[in-house]
Amino acid sequence: MTTHTLVPTTWYNVLGTFPPVLTVESGDTVVTETIDANGWDKSDILVSGSPNPMNGPIAVAGAEPGDTLKVEILAMTPIRSTGWTRAALAENVVDPTFVPELPPRDRAIWRIDRNALTATLERPVPGLEHLVLPLEPMIGCFGVAPAIGQAISTATSAEHGGNMDYRRFGPGATICFPVAAPGALFFLGDCHATQGDGEIVGTGIETCFEVTVRLTVEKHSIVWPRGETADDIITIGNARPLDQALQHATTEMVRWLGELGLDVLAASHLLGQTVRYDIGNVYDPAYTVACRLDKKWLPKRP
Amino acid sequence: MTTHTLVPTTWYNVLGTFPPVLTVESGDTVVTETIDANGWDKSDILVSGSPNPMNGPIAVAGAEPGDTLKVEILAMTPIRSTGWTRAALAENVVDPTFVPELPPRDRAIWRIDRNALTATLERPVPGLEHLVLPLEPMIGCFGVAPAIGQAISTATSAEHGGNMDYRRFGPGATICFPVAAPGALFFLGDCHATQGDGEIVGTGIETCFEVTVRLTVEKHSIVWPRGETADDIITIGNARPLDQALQHATTEMVRWLGELGLDVLAASHLLGQTVRYDIGNVYDPAYTVACRLDKKWLPKRP
Amino acid sequence: MTTHTLVPTTWYNVLGTFPPVLTVESGDTVVTETIDANGWDKSDILVSGSPNPMNGPIAVAGAEPGDTLKVEILAMTPIRSTGWTRAALAENVVDPTFVPELPPRDRAIWRIDRNALTATLERPVPGLEHLVLPLEPMIGCFGVAPAIGQAISTATSAEHGGNMDYRRFGPGATICFPVAAPGALFFLGDCHATQGDGEIVGTGIETCFEVTVRLTVEKHSIVWPRGETADDIITIGNARPLDQALQHATTEMVRWLGELGLDVLAASHLLGQTVRYDIGNVYDPAYTVACRLDKKWLPKRP
Amino acid sequence: MTTHTLVPTTWYNVLGTFPPVLTVESGDTVVTETIDANGWDKSDILVSGSPNPMNGPIAVAGAEPGDTLKVEILAMTPIRSTGWTRAALAENVVDPTFVPELPPRDRAIWRIDRNALTATLERPVPGLEHLVLPLEPMIGCFGVAPAIGQAISTATSAEHGGNMDYRRFGPGATICFPVAAPGALFFLGDCHATQGDGEIVGTGIETCFEVTVRLTVEKHSIVWPRGETADDIITIGNARPLDQALQHATTEMVRWLGELGLDVLAASHLLGQTVRYDIGNVYDPAYTVACRLDKKWLPKRP
Repeated sequence: MTTHTLVPTTWYNVLGTFPPVLTVESGDTVVTETIDANGWDKSDILVSGSPNPMNGPIAVAGAEPGDTLKVEILAMTPIRSTGWTRAALAENVVDPTFVPELPPRDRAIWRIDRNALTATLERPVPGLEHLVLPLEPMIGCFGVAPAIGQAISTATSAEHGGNMDYRRFGPGATICFPVAAPGALFFLGDCHATQGDGEIVGTGIETCFEVTVRLTVEKHSIVWPRGETADDIITIGNARPLDQALQHATTEMVRWLGELGLDVLAASHLLGQTVRYDIGNVYDPAYTVACRLDKKWLPKRP
Repeated sequence: MTTHTLVPTTWYNVLGTFPPVLTVESGDTVVTETIDANGWDKSDILVSGSPNPMNGPIAVAGAEPGDTLKVEILAMTPIRSTGWTRAALAENVVDPTFVPELPPRDRAIWRIDRNALTATLERPVPGLEHLVLPLEPMIGCFGVAPAIGQAISTATSAEHGGNMDYRRFGPGATICFPVAAPGALFFLGDCHATQGDGEIVGTGIETCFEVTVRLTVEKHSIVWPRGETADDIITIGNARPLDQALQHATTEMVRWLGELGLDVLAASHLLGQTVRYDIGNVYDPAYTVACRLDKKWLPKRP
Repeated sequence: MTTHTLVPTTWYNVLGTFPPVLTVESGDTVVTETIDANGWDKSDILVSGSPNPMNGPIAVAGAEPGDTLKVEILAMTPIRSTGWTRAALAENVVDPTFVPELPPRDRAIWRIDRNALTATLERPVPGLEHLVLPLEPMIGCFGVAPAIGQAISTATSAEHGGNMDYRRFGPGATICFPVAAPGALFFLGDCHATQGDGEIVGTGIETCFEVTVRLTVEKHSIVWPRGETADDIITIGNARPLDQALQHATTEMVRWLGELGLDVLAASHLLGQTVRYDIGNVYDPAYTVACRLDKKWLPKRP
Repeated sequence: MTTHTLVPTTWYNVLGTFPPVLTVESGDTVVTETIDANGWDKSDILVSGSPNPMNGPIAVAGAEPGDTLKVEILAMTPIRSTGWTRAALAENVVDPTFVPELPPRDRAIWRIDRNALTATLERPVPGLEHLVLPLEPMIGCFGVAPAIGQAISTATSAEHGGNMDYRRFGPGATICFPVAAPGALFFLGDCHATQGDGEIVGTGIETCFEVTVRLTVEKHSIVWPRGETADDIITIGNARPLDQALQHATTEMVRWLGELGLDVLAASHLLGQTVRYDIGNVYDPAYTVACRLDKKWLPKRP
């Protein structure tokens, strides 16, 4: 198991089948620094452009279409003392008649205290003078090259992952993507210092991170991204409206429970009374819904 | 402050402007026993019919259109040793192509241990032999008479409340409804022993409860139901698709934060990085989304 | 077959089970004058209020739940020389980011020439100085009392009909509603001098009409409204989003074709290559989609 | 003005920025033969694969990002005597509870009479023994390379066009696409002998055509595809749900009317009473809605 350092010099605004900038063995670890969603690096230099420039792709030797790429997020360390957000709710998350009440969608700057691991508004607004947010780092956009030669914008998401903007995909989480191209071709970027459910201002606190991930090929197939945290197993659906994203995520969870020994009847009983849904984002062209199940409910494996 | 006992002899399948079966003063407490969603009482006798027969209406003296009715759920005690659920995921929560894989939507019986406060399947299915669910009681359907003389089915929900099927509306929670008829005319029923997010089998564990609520009139206006738990403030949107329910809930939260001293800019900053969304139900004709904010983020009142 | 004249003195803003103001025999004809959507009558006197005040209910002797009420629109004659519209597109029919570009949703007045059967803006706007619209009268809101004692706002629609705002429901059209209450209890109102698809300004040209309908009970069941024009058979779905309204309408058409001798396979072949969809309205709380099939494609009846 | 013949030897399943197989001058005409949606050519030989293999790309000299590519469909001649359809309604166009009633989605063969210009089922089903459909040829999938290096599957559609499956895009129609890559890079394929609204079996009658198009660069910008037929001007929105597709199409129509001298107020008045909506497809990952306005309503140009 080797640890690689990836220092990107170019970035992609789509996830597609491009020549890898690094090839690793299954089980290897990669450390890389990400730039922010608009292309500014840790030194506040504009090195790339919107949307969501990606580091990568990283090929994993032996990954073939039909396999699964397991991504363990081992660490995320903030490497810039500022982040930014949009200053207004997105037009699509309020009643259409309320849209004219929204303030301009300016950019707001947040100070990031890298020792205290907190974020504060550079220019506090009335009522939020004392707001200090703990950092809850997450990767907004990551995934693999999609099928049939598609190159999908990092503004959106699909079966291959992409811009899911889901706040539980941070350090300690594991995410699996369906491999559709040889080498899997993993991309990552668009990290957030924190973010609410739904990414309803259209951003988290956008900044730069050093990210450490371990990449492992698994020889089985999945349809939609799957994840795991300390407590939960998670499936992801990406689509509009939220209803369809939820259908994808729920169906993938039923498939997963089938692999774990629960038929559709048992999965119905279990999910019906214990499932949790999270709204990853309700802003991007494809919305993201996570279907989440506490691991304590899973059948014990012998 | 008086405590009343309501013993219903008839039930309603709609929420509308009907003669009250009980009139109380603002601040009074009411204790009543509910029957299950199909009309079976605690003695397993069929006394009413689907959908979701309601106790009530209870008039609260002094409530006028434009006011708010505050409902504090003080206690919920299970009063039957069985509950039931549908045995299959609803057709609308899985991919349309997966629908033929679903088992029949039969009724499954659960044993309710009223001492241990747990529920178990009467006939366990493979993989769930050891499933013991802690009770998490909640009121599935409650609310007030809607505006302009409407009588709205207890299968669905709207501004007046109704069949929201949201699992956080249990003991300790407070819910406020917009009053649209003199006396408010409060109804309740359809209690669940527990339920997952989304009510994705179309039911929680449907059973009978003794419910204790305190009803208080407040002289201010709201548009959508609002709630409060130990940790959170909550707004509710009821509509299809989930996107629109979320818009209603978010807009109501922005209005509420405005009343608490945060303008739309401040509300955007705060919600953008801290909001949580819950999916109450994704089964009923109108879906329910809750917009939830931890009270620790609210501006301190002087 | 008798012709009745109904002169209303009160109006309803909901469709529900109320005492009939007139009872007719199956096959009888009723002539009645409607007031406009805001309650102004043909003499410009405000006699009722929003939303969409209804004439009725009219009971049809012998109609029982499970039957179908057939409504033939025999004639619609405009009886006022003005109509009105909203002066801006509704917020929900444009991109959310475009909403701030919309003008105020003021009321605009149209002159109705009852001889020429045309409508023109009282105050023409630049570019529309010569706009003369031919009248294409239609009933915006009509239907029967809904099931289980519901009283449904005339702002919206469901299985019982209601505010469908579909432009093909004018003179010469026949519409069938599923009877859910004894006597069917037919209501009508909200007539438009003309309207585009979708009712995207939130109104047609709202005015008053003398309407002549023939009401006939049929002893068979339908789920959603069905209609017929000179050329087409039509089924209606009312729901949000449009996708769901379309599902209801398509499913009802498949059921109808089944009654006409085409199984689901044949119906799929026929509809797949010949179906037409109309968007009745995309403004009301429930949207309306019509599924339409040219009668020339129907199997010949022996 | 030159006429070119394009004989493809490879096909693309995505629309993206690839080396052109032909470069033409603005105003030139191209004649090319398309293969069917699954990759079978006019001789029933499988030469490519799903989804919707495309001829192209064709570069048009001088086209730059920000320009518009005008595509006039001059002729479509069927070149195979068979076509095929799916034999069942798609699962997403009926009520979820009706899905188990659908027959298998087998492939059905249609005989195409190239003299009579009609299509008939090779194996008629009961009730459709006499069904003879006139050909109404259309291009299911066509468009230009999308922005920022995306390569978008020919199964779906977006601002660049793609798999819109809209039945009015046949001979005599003109369609304009927003250019996002130098040379525009035009692709076409997936032609249908006829198709109903919505493409609700997931296909039209899929076959091969000789297609003649004229390609012209225009030095102005559009956001979504625009079209014109003998009677109408048309704007296209591609998204899910249908509601959002309709918002895109309506907003683009308002922009177009603005260019023609109608401000948003005038556009609201005109569209509100005269607009027509068509559902192109309600099957592909992105649905297609067309906003259509009769040219007789447009302000006269001096």
